[in-house]
Amino acid sequence: MTNRFQTIGLIAKPGDSAVASTLTTLLGELERRGLPVLLDPSAAAYFEHPSADVVERAALATRCDLVIVVGGDGTLLNASRSVAGADVPVLGVNLGRLGFLADVSPNEMCDRLNEILAGDYEEEKRSLLHASVIRGNDIVSESDALNDVVVHKWDIARMIEVDTHIDDRYLNTVRADGLIVSTPTGSTAYALSGGGPILDPGLDALVLVPICPHTLSNRPIVVSDQVRIDVRLHGDGDSKAQVTCDGQVNYTLFGGDLIRICRKEHDLRLIHPRGHDHFDIMRKKLRWAEQP
Amino acid sequence: MTNRFQTIGLIAKPGDSAVASTLTTLLGELERRGLPVLLDPSAAAYFEHPSADVVERAALATRCDLVIVVGGDGTLLNASRSVAGADVPVLGVNLGRLGFLADVSPNEMCDRLNEILAGDYEEEKRSLLHASVIRGNDIVSESDALNDVVVHKWDIARMIEVDTHIDDRYLNTVRADGLIVSTPTGSTAYALSGGGPILDPGLDALVLVPICPHTLSNRPIVVSDQVRIDVRLHGDGDSKAQVTCDGQVNYTLFGGDLIRICRKEHDLRLIHPRGHDHFDIMRKKLRWAEQP
Amino acid sequence: MTNRFQTIGLIAKPGDSAVASTLTTLLGELERRGLPVLLDPSAAAYFEHPSADVVERAALATRCDLVIVVGGDGTLLNASRSVAGADVPVLGVNLGRLGFLADVSPNEMCDRLNEILAGDYEEEKRSLLHASVIRGNDIVSESDALNDVVVHKWDIARMIEVDTHIDDRYLNTVRADGLIVSTPTGSTAYALSGGGPILDPGLDALVLVPICPHTLSNRPIVVSDQVRIDVRLHGDGDSKAQVTCDGQVNYTLFGGDLIRICRKEHDLRLIHPRGHDHFDIMRKKLRWAEQP
Amino acid sequence: MTNRFQTIGLIAKPGDSAVASTLTTLLGELERRGLPVLLDPSAAAYFEHPSADVVERAALATRCDLVIVVGGDGTLLNASRSVAGADVPVLGVNLGRLGFLADVSPNEMCDRLNEILAGDYEEEKRSLLHASVIRGNDIVSESDALNDVVVHKWDIARMIEVDTHIDDRYLNTVRADGLIVSTPTGSTAYALSGGGPILDPGLDALVLVPICPHTLSNRPIVVSDQVRIDVRLHGDGDSKAQVTCDGQVNYTLFGGDLIRICRKEHDLRLIHPRGHDHFDIMRKKLRWAEQP
Repeated sequence: MTNRFQTIGLIAKPGDSAVASTLTTLLGELERRGLPVLLDPSAAAYFEHPSADVVERAALATRCDLVIVVGGDGTLLNASRSVAGADVPVLGVNLGRLGFLADVSPNEMCDRLNEILAGDYEEEKRSLLHASVIRGNDIVSESDALNDVVVHKWDIARMIEVDTHIDDRYLNTVRADGLIVSTPTGSTAYALSGGGPILDPGLDALVLVPICPHTLSNRPIVVSDQVRIDVRLHGDGDSKAQVTCDGQVNYTLFGGDLIRICRKEHDLRLIHPRGHDHFDIMRKKLRWAEQP
Repeated sequence: MTNRFQTIGLIAKPGDSAVASTLTTLLGELERRGLPVLLDPSAAAYFEHPSADVVERAALATRCDLVIVVGGDGTLLNASRSVAGADVPVLGVNLGRLGFLADVSPNEMCDRLNEILAGDYEEEKRSLLHASVIRGNDIVSESDALNDVVVHKWDIARMIEVDTHIDDRYLNTVRADGLIVSTPTGSTAYALSGGGPILDPGLDALVLVPICPHTLSNRPIVVSDQVRIDVRLHGDGDSKAQVTCDGQVNYTLFGGDLIRICRKEHDLRLIHPRGHDHFDIMRKKLRWAEQP
Repeated sequence: MTNRFQTIGLIAKPGDSAVASTLTTLLGELERRGLPVLLDPSAAAYFEHPSADVVERAALATRCDLVIVVGGDGTLLNASRSVAGADVPVLGVNLGRLGFLADVSPNEMCDRLNEILAGDYEEEKRSLLHASVIRGNDIVSESDALNDVVVHKWDIARMIEVDTHIDDRYLNTVRADGLIVSTPTGSTAYALSGGGPILDPGLDALVLVPICPHTLSNRPIVVSDQVRIDVRLHGDGDSKAQVTCDGQVNYTLFGGDLIRICRKEHDLRLIHPRGHDHFDIMRKKLRWAEQP
Repeated sequence: MTNRFQTIGLIAKPGDSAVASTLTTLLGELERRGLPVLLDPSAAAYFEHPSADVVERAALATRCDLVIVVGGDGTLLNASRSVAGADVPVLGVNLGRLGFLADVSPNEMCDRLNEILAGDYEEEKRSLLHASVIRGNDIVSESDALNDVVVHKWDIARMIEVDTHIDDRYLNTVRADGLIVSTPTGSTAYALSGGGPILDPGLDALVLVPICPHTLSNRPIVVSDQVRIDVRLHGDGDSKAQVTCDGQVNYTLFGGDLIRICRKEHDLRLIHPRGHDHFDIMRKKLRWAEQP
């Protein structure tokens, strides 16, 4: 029997005791099948003497046919930003808690793996964002995001003020704790807490969600993801704000900084077991069906 | 000088004294230019002896090159449902209050008309919805909507319960005062009052907004407008609910009825004066810029 | 051993098969103790030959020392409006689903009854509202409400417009689907779905919650419950609105009608088993503690 | 003619050029009347050679009969925290923009002052909060707040987790950007941006508003202001959060810290010109009455 995916890369959530046994089982299963495995340093750290090669993240992405991420949605966010550019598919194994992205539980992992390696799986595309911070004429920072790019206050109790242009057309000026620019994937994460709508994962759109805006009619706005969003931070040069990607990558902003956000050229190729039902996960995660 | 549009149709808001003088000015201006004018009965009612032909709405749409609607957004909603199918462009003259759709004021009307007839204008496409009520195996009612299709409680103080399928995939069951399915155009109308996001007018998407849902995590959901939305009303055969299009067309529902909603094949061709800025209208209508 | 309560009245949710056995058990238990029992017609309907006297609701309230309501929060709302004026304590037995008000489950009913009859219980006061509809110089309708008084649109798809005065001071004019005036008890019911805050049950306050208001800054407003709230319905004499108490008592309104809302003089005396914890019920009902 | 108030204290917003002329006019007017004036250092800074005595804030509060604050709501918040304990009435002169608290404009200032000094004014009580940070067994920080006490994330992009007890009864555990505890005065400030209700200024209540809570059913909760609110910050000893009073006074928190919030014993005595109408200010500030 031929395997759909030859070389498999493993990425893991660091420092979580529950990861070790799942990772050991997974590695054993793959080696039993004679599949070459590459370990990200985050996965290798769980083994005293790893039986598989350890390679840095960037190399891992280009050398693998499939990346399996053991952890939760947070780990998968982190992994996705670094491997999406290499166009390699990603499968998420969650630890205990059902994830929106990592939807394979450890106890069904080996069965699902069987099917997936045999080519029996579903693949969906998830858009990412690319954010640049422009100061004067220079790009001083860049990052991708699978969930969201958030411009938010920092080191101050006061609101920040930003103006937003969509494809060079002036949209508005908002005084708020911050502004979330979210993908459909991120719409069930922080943007939802901020009062944003849920976007169907396949929708070619982004949503801008102001965080605690001073003006109550500053509502979330959904736009095409083919636009360029320019968020300009008002104020002088004192440090007052930060830009954060996926809640994981931070960069300090100064008054006058421009945060430019576009859809990233490459999408994430997200693998699910056959029969994956995104609406079912939403119903469970958001507890739509239950009554005490 | 050639006119871009030859035959012009006029539709008016009924029973509004402010309409009469605007309509008289407009008709005089068009006749001065020697353009054939057709009057919808709603417009003809303002003249004792109309100097132009009076034709029914359906005929008017097919015989005109441009329809001018004098009234406000409500009149334009009404007109759009009946003329969009004929693919004729529509221009809105508002009375006093700036509209999202009718954005030409009476005092600038003649100047703007000059430009528009000379071909100097902007045209945008606005999607419409088509809703069918299916009872048993029969379609018992059909209507278009430019803003929204709303399934809502009726003749009862209690919530209704509906389940929704998107392209035959089960989404959820909601207990609420109702459910709004809105176009981008409608997203700044009733859906906004219900807590929905603003959708950019050109976005190929719809938003489902539950009205006062019992479960607080039942948030607005944005989906592609290429889907088919099936809303099934729970309960027995007693009259308990209604479906309303654009707040103007009503139909009584019974338990078990299915409301099927798709994007209408034809879009509305909406005409604006050159320099039209949708974001600017939003800033004004939603008072984003001002402080007392 | 002396019983704290002598004569016990029983009120039941009509037409629910689950009520019958609970009611039979309860009646048996009370008769075993030799306590006089009075049956409301709603409870008597479950017995072919009731062994206890059947009396009308008003008489029941004045002749009992304790009223036990078997059903759910809805049944208890109904019962409370009719017995609160007689100052008789009320205990709620819920059927299956935990209630905010009816918090004794059938399987613990006999044990809890033991304690309560022995005087081992907690009693709390819940405020009610009294609403009058004033047309011209006449009061044309009056009702109490334990949860809320709602002025809402009726037989129309459009918003209604109301102005509100608090103790004769003009508050605002709101265009909306309706206006909820809620007690703290009602703040976890319909008012919560409308975006209102939760009010601690003992708080001497009311909350006004506009339903889907056209103006987004029309937020819920919390005021002292010592005020008089006057809600005036705009428009002409056509039927366009309704006032509803607790979602159970309706009255048709006409343009110009005044709905006057005050705190009712008598509170509901609500009985709970010892150890009752309102916050715990909130955490369970609103699912604060759980994660999938 | 006797003056109601003898010694007048002046407090000013620092570093605002618009303050200087108003302050000069005000000081001249008071001296013309022969009233003793005391200048807070913030006011004295506007004069090269102040003609009145300059005293520190604490002394000013105890030696004055009336404090006039020139600036805006922010300046009045600052002044109130430092003078409320001395039970001295406070009048606010706003600069340009109507304030919820500072409601006398410079151009009507002298006329209003006339009336107020003659005893023709309205006085209302506004409650304040007192917040203590308890670390281990020690109170490590204390502050008052007229608007709000906010426990919020700091130096992290992630949510914080806090549990709240009301009078030693466990309320809930919330994961959020923060938690606002607001007075009625503060309910139209930051708490409103966070989705909280408006509280009538005279209401004896507080509102707890979670900021962007992870669980969507974590709604604002209104409780009596006679309670003691204990907010415990989860997590270890790393710096992750901050407590902020009125957006002006900050203190860094560590995991395990307890923030204890009670109503302050002394209220603010806030002076308004005769005819002051709080609802009218709300209508103006929140733009309830207007339509474009």
